[in-house]
Amino acid sequence: MSLPTEILDYARDALARLVAIPSVSAEGRALAPAAAAVRELLEELGATTELHETAGAPVVFAERPAQPGQQTVLFYNHYDVQPADPLELWRSEPFALTEEDGVWYGRGVADDKGELVSRLAALRWFLAEHGELPLGFKFVVEGEEEVGSPNLVEYVTRYKERLAADGCVWEFGGVTASGRPTTYFGLKGIACVELRVATASHDLHSSLGAVVENPIYRLAAALASLRDADGRVTVAGFYDDVTPLGPAEEELLAALPDEGAELREVYGVEGYLGGVSGAGFQRRLLTEPNINYNGFHAGYGGPGSKTVLPASASAKLDIRLVPDQDPERVLRALRDHLDAHGFSDVELVELETSQRAARTSADHPFVRATIQALREGFGQEPVAYPNVAGSGPMYPFVAELGLPVVGLGCSHPGSRAHSPNENVRVADFAASVVATKRLLELLRR
Amino acid sequence: MSLPTEILDYARDALARLVAIPSVSAEGRALAPAAAAVRELLEELGATTELHETAGAPVVFAERPAQPGQQTVLFYNHYDVQPADPLELWRSEPFALTEEDGVWYGRGVADDKGELVSRLAALRWFLAEHGELPLGFKFVVEGEEEVGSPNLVEYVTRYKERLAADGCVWEFGGVTASGRPTTYFGLKGIACVELRVATASHDLHSSLGAVVENPIYRLAAALASLRDADGRVTVAGFYDDVTPLGPAEEELLAALPDEGAELREVYGVEGYLGGVSGAGFQRRLLTEPNINYNGFHAGYGGPGSKTVLPASASAKLDIRLVPDQDPERVLRALRDHLDAHGFSDVELVELETSQRAARTSADHPFVRATIQALREGFGQEPVAYPNVAGSGPMYPFVAELGLPVVGLGCSHPGSRAHSPNENVRVADFAASVVATKRLLELLRR
Repeated sequence: MSLPTEILDYARDALARLVAIPSVSAEGRALAPAAAAVRELLEELGATTELHETAGAPVVFAERPAQPGQQTVLFYNHYDVQPADPLELWRSEPFALTEEDGVWYGRGVADDKGELVSRLAALRWFLAEHGELPLGFKFVVEGEEEVGSPNLVEYVTRYKERLAADGCVWEFGGVTASGRPTTYFGLKGIACVELRVATASHDLHSSLGAVVENPIYRLAAALASLRDADGRVTVAGFYDDVTPLGPAEEELLAALPDEGAELREVYGVEGYLGGVSGAGFQRRLLTEPNINYNGFHAGYGGPGSKTVLPASASAKLDIRLVPDQDPERVLRALRDHLDAHGFSDVELVELETSQRAARTSADHPFVRATIQALREGFGQEPVAYPNVAGSGPMYPFVAELGLPVVGLGCSHPGSRAHSPNENVRVADFAASVVATKRLLELLRR
Repeated sequence: MSLPTEILDYARDALARLVAIPSVSAEGRALAPAAAAVRELLEELGATTELHETAGAPVVFAERPAQPGQQTVLFYNHYDVQPADPLELWRSEPFALTEEDGVWYGRGVADDKGELVSRLAALRWFLAEHGELPLGFKFVVEGEEEVGSPNLVEYVTRYKERLAADGCVWEFGGVTASGRPTTYFGLKGIACVELRVATASHDLHSSLGAVVENPIYRLAAALASLRDADGRVTVAGFYDDVTPLGPAEEELLAALPDEGAELREVYGVEGYLGGVSGAGFQRRLLTEPNINYNGFHAGYGGPGSKTVLPASASAKLDIRLVPDQDPERVLRALRDHLDAHGFSDVELVELETSQRAARTSADHPFVRATIQALREGFGQEPVAYPNVAGSGPMYPFVAELGLPVVGLGCSHPGSRAHSPNENVRVADFAASVVATKRLLELLRR
């Protein structure tokens, strides 16, 4: 079963249309045009669509009802993307779909416009072949995923009845370094914060550094105190609520391939935190919470030197959470740690709504159908993760809607999501469309 | 003795002309036009001028020879300035002289174009009054002071015979918070370095922060290890070569006013490193070496959050030195510290040529004349520092030319040198011109 040319052409056109819209949610850019384009694509599939307003960017909701006795699949995707900077590292225009040697480049081709289009292509293909669908479908396509989906919990709660379904296909997935399709049944949670220090009312001549406190030192010392050299978080109470994996998930973990060695080259790193490898790599990546530093900016950064004592410094952090850590409790522990270690001068600002981790039981029939569809679509044995290391607003879909949630998609380990030269390989994209169509067939009743 | 209007008008015009030239040496901007403007101003004073090429920006040399039996004064100044950024914090155009409520604003009005012009104004005034001068003068006006004067040691050595004089007036000085004129007989040394860490070949999705090292953590931990919370440097051997003050300099130190409390408001700080105050403040500021952080930049710094794991981080530092620390030895100790504390991954790059500290004996006749001139020019008892906290290329003037070196000028503690809204008060400027003219008279033989 291989993808017909007209479906690939459709997908390329649809993706080019979406990538050309610079829908950067962190900058509030071009979100309305992106939502409008997504609506049009969904209407072309015979769905009725609605633009559901939220306190932030609107959600595109689409529905093509099930016939009696059929199941309904809910697709969750997002039309927003990460900022494109640093622009100078892109080899092509970020907001234009570029094809080169069987690879599509552009901001969002992997996360998440490419995967949204792969769902549309699968549905279009099924309709072209049969003129009908074996199930109902719904789409929730939001515009704030890359800024932490601050309004999605409230949205899902408010539209709970409209979102009723039998299973949910999550926004992303892909293949391993060795080309096996992946699927997963959970996500880490996340809390994003900024730490700020101000030591003077204005920048001073750096000769005063002999007597005036330096905000870079204060912030550096605070950041250095949050973890040890192995990456283990040193904030008291941080690990208190971590729930160990159950037996079914431990089994999945044990069956995972040893990817660490291959990925070292992809990432261009010499080794991993704590020297982990093999199963230790997977356990740490998937099941352990951590604190990550996204940025640190203070003072002079231009050419040469500038003998300035900056007045302030700030750093952005994300904290990755696992079941059943409570983000609010973790942030309180972080504040307590700063105070207890003499960093009361360090201001802690929560940047966006935190997300709890979520995990679906690995032996649900919807999960088993997904594994089979991937096996047939990609022609290789899937790699099934109890959860992946990424985060997202999965928690309300599991906890509020009571849905099993599975992830699949078209990325590969070198897709550079969130980085310059984001890309997907056209062959992975095509296989993902085939697998998604196969999943629709398997869910037929 | 007050400044004639025509001399002040001359000074305002000359300063406006120099400030309008954005001669930022860190960016290699507009250095030739600045040098040309300085030459013209010096020629107007009857000096012969030469442009002395160096490996970097040229030095403007000027000479009006002494008559037999007269002394010769060498003035050292610079025509380059610091970058104007952050531009958004300026209330006026940085590269335009703006006068408001008796204050001149603009990049360089304090450091060092204002003080260069104050010397020119004093000489012009003397010539207007007497048609002749009571001494010879020379000027060395360089264009690389703000990037560490990398070529000045070699320049002074090469032109040693041409620079022969009886005393040297250093580039800057001013008044204390309470309005007393200041003078000083030494400077701290300085070494500027950049520390860099790279952990991956490109930015990664921050979910990988569970297993991939974070360069911000590495650099923050390295910076935090270099000093303690009180600001004392923890690098082994750092203090080894520090020579204590001699009795004459200890006497000056003891006579200094308690400025710390007043300066807290000027700087907008709550207190000082190590809780120092009174004489402890002066001792620490003037006689202790330290490490200062000028800037730290890595990863995302835009609005909102970005879940990125940056590939690299860098920080700029300046290390302030006192007699008789050897910059090369200090940098070796820093490298050894990093290696010994597990930071071999932190690259250390020297940004510019280091400068040794210098100090002139406080009881030289040239020093005494300077103190008297300031007393008469400002009408208040001068504050005489054994050395100031700032740095500069004074060492070759003392060690190579064998000159006593004194500093005086027109800045005040709120002059914001190197910062937005750099300014001098016109009254301070005028008093500085009066004092400089008085010094010329006192040196008459």
